[in-house]
Amino acid sequence: MNTFHSPTPFLLESGETIQELDIAYHTFGTLNERKDNVVWVCHALTANSDVQDWWPHTVEAGCFLDPGKWFVVCANIIGSCYGSTGPTSINPATGEPYYDAFPKLTIRDMVNAHILLADALGLERIHMLVGSSVGGFQAIEWVVMQPERFDRLILIATSPKASPWSIAIDETQRMAILSDRTYGEHRPDAGHDGLAAARAIGLLTYRGPWGYNMTQQDPPTDEIPKDHRACSYQRYQGEKLCRRFNAYSYMAILDAFDTHDAGRGRGGVSAALARIKCPTIVIGITTDIIFTPGEMRELTDMIPGARYFEIQSEFGHDGFLVEHEKLNQILMQE
Amino acid sequence: MNTFHSPTPFLLESGETIQELDIAYHTFGTLNERKDNVVWVCHALTANSDVQDWWPHTVEAGCFLDPGKWFVVCANIIGSCYGSTGPTSINPATGEPYYDAFPKLTIRDMVNAHILLADALGLERIHMLVGSSVGGFQAIEWVVMQPERFDRLILIATSPKASPWSIAIDETQRMAILSDRTYGEHRPDAGHDGLAAARAIGLLTYRGPWGYNMTQQDPPTDEIPKDHRACSYQRYQGEKLCRRFNAYSYMAILDAFDTHDAGRGRGGVSAALARIKCPTIVIGITTDIIFTPGEMRELTDMIPGARYFEIQSEFGHDGFLVEHEKLNQILMQE
Repeated sequence: MNTFHSPTPFLLESGETIQELDIAYHTFGTLNERKDNVVWVCHALTANSDVQDWWPHTVEAGCFLDPGKWFVVCANIIGSCYGSTGPTSINPATGEPYYDAFPKLTIRDMVNAHILLADALGLERIHMLVGSSVGGFQAIEWVVMQPERFDRLILIATSPKASPWSIAIDETQRMAILSDRTYGEHRPDAGHDGLAAARAIGLLTYRGPWGYNMTQQDPPTDEIPKDHRACSYQRYQGEKLCRRFNAYSYMAILDAFDTHDAGRGRGGVSAALARIKCPTIVIGITTDIIFTPGEMRELTDMIPGARYFEIQSEFGHDGFLVEHEKLNQILMQE
Repeated sequence: MNTFHSPTPFLLESGETIQELDIAYHTFGTLNERKDNVVWVCHALTANSDVQDWWPHTVEAGCFLDPGKWFVVCANIIGSCYGSTGPTSINPATGEPYYDAFPKLTIRDMVNAHILLADALGLERIHMLVGSSVGGFQAIEWVVMQPERFDRLILIATSPKASPWSIAIDETQRMAILSDRTYGEHRPDAGHDGLAAARAIGLLTYRGPWGYNMTQQDPPTDEIPKDHRACSYQRYQGEKLCRRFNAYSYMAILDAFDTHDAGRGRGGVSAALARIKCPTIVIGITTDIIFTPGEMRELTDMIPGARYFEIQSEFGHDGFLVEHEKLNQILMQE
């Protein structure tokens, strides 16, 4: 992991500023002399800049992010807790971590941080921009802000604007976090139980009915069950997130999620997406209940010349992580 | 509302007993002389015995629960808080409310309470048994326990066994309630914030993407939104439940939900459902993500001679409450 430090105040869409910025990033492969082999990956909610860690079998020889061919860059989004400035970073004004005093971010702020880094790395042209889920929010924003910078855009299981349904999911997670009265205390594990519950809510929507019913069946029994595999799975996954994330960063990213609207100040979503100039591939997942196939087709229709592919999967939204073979199949032949 | 009091110890499936039982119930219409016009309605999670209150346009002239024709009975499930014995009832052993000391219930316990009441009312034969959602859990249990008692069975958006997916939804709600550290305090509003979050989780699964996207769109704006309709809706609905329910009853019913398995001790679900002798209609909802149309068809296939109908709706699982016209259409002509 590398860290880019920007010592000057960073202006947010809200008008607030962050005094200085760290942007953590990973690169894979080698930048060629013509600098025309750059692939930029935007990561989702609680992921990090290490694409090989969270997206197995993509940054591999023979796969669509083959590091023998491409110079792959991924930056940790600001607001997160994997090296980029976020709520657990030290606030230079106080010498203490920001926690709940961290200013509210938007997706555009995250993209402006990506742009700072891309410029600093001298990557004027980006051959391919890839985003899944909240990563796709960033990719859409970036390509709308700088349509000339990209040769190609890949959008997977994502949206140009947070839907009421996805906002309701986020609000429910906020309610769970806020029902844990330790949230607000100035320590990184504040709101631990609420964060675990929020993660469990998220997981429901990532996997959906088919994902759980396929993988979490209980063994047959003639006793009244005292626990269930699906229950311990939810608790385990909640706890697992708490070990690697914090409730303040989680809330910061949820807020940015909900205000995502590529059409804000640009005459609406359709007008914004009409600015996209590069060939675009949109990929939906048949069982995704967050970004439904119907919405993915609507997104495709709004991007000039975009083509739509659909992955058959039982894994819901998580299909974008699980179905790497089908993803490689689509993206290697296109 | 009427209350039936059973002064003798009530044996639970777990082997525990409840010292005495109140069962609250409503009736609509008049029992005819031959006592062959009884319709028994089993209610869902947080509903009550007043069917007219929670299921509009069903207990009405010309509708499928027409009180001019049928003698409609509905009992509040034990564990609930609408008049039947539950966690906020006084424990005769202590003189204080049970709260979290209330013994764990199963769906079979709820049905055994229904049977106590039906016997006490002298309703030997029940012409039609109707259950939606958790009401359907009870209906399935009852008809499997006493297959000779019923002439007809109507199952709407329900299941013969809690699926891993539905159990995961319940566990997530439990996690939200338990993250509120006031849960466990001996007062009826303990766990208030956690219960509100749990309700918000439930609502996500009752409505699904189409329901929210249809009804909770924000007005267009060029500002960064400070709140969203979908957010205030979630908070409002959470708060609204807290005014009429309590976290202890909610937990009691979730536990009963998760252990629901009509096949327990009966050689499995298929063998249990094969006992059903009466004509059965199963109704699924196209957008129900809790009890998916595929699962509803599987349920139909396991009940001898059962017929399946599907309601086209954008309202997800809540379709069983909202789509009363379509429901009446199916049930009035059959």
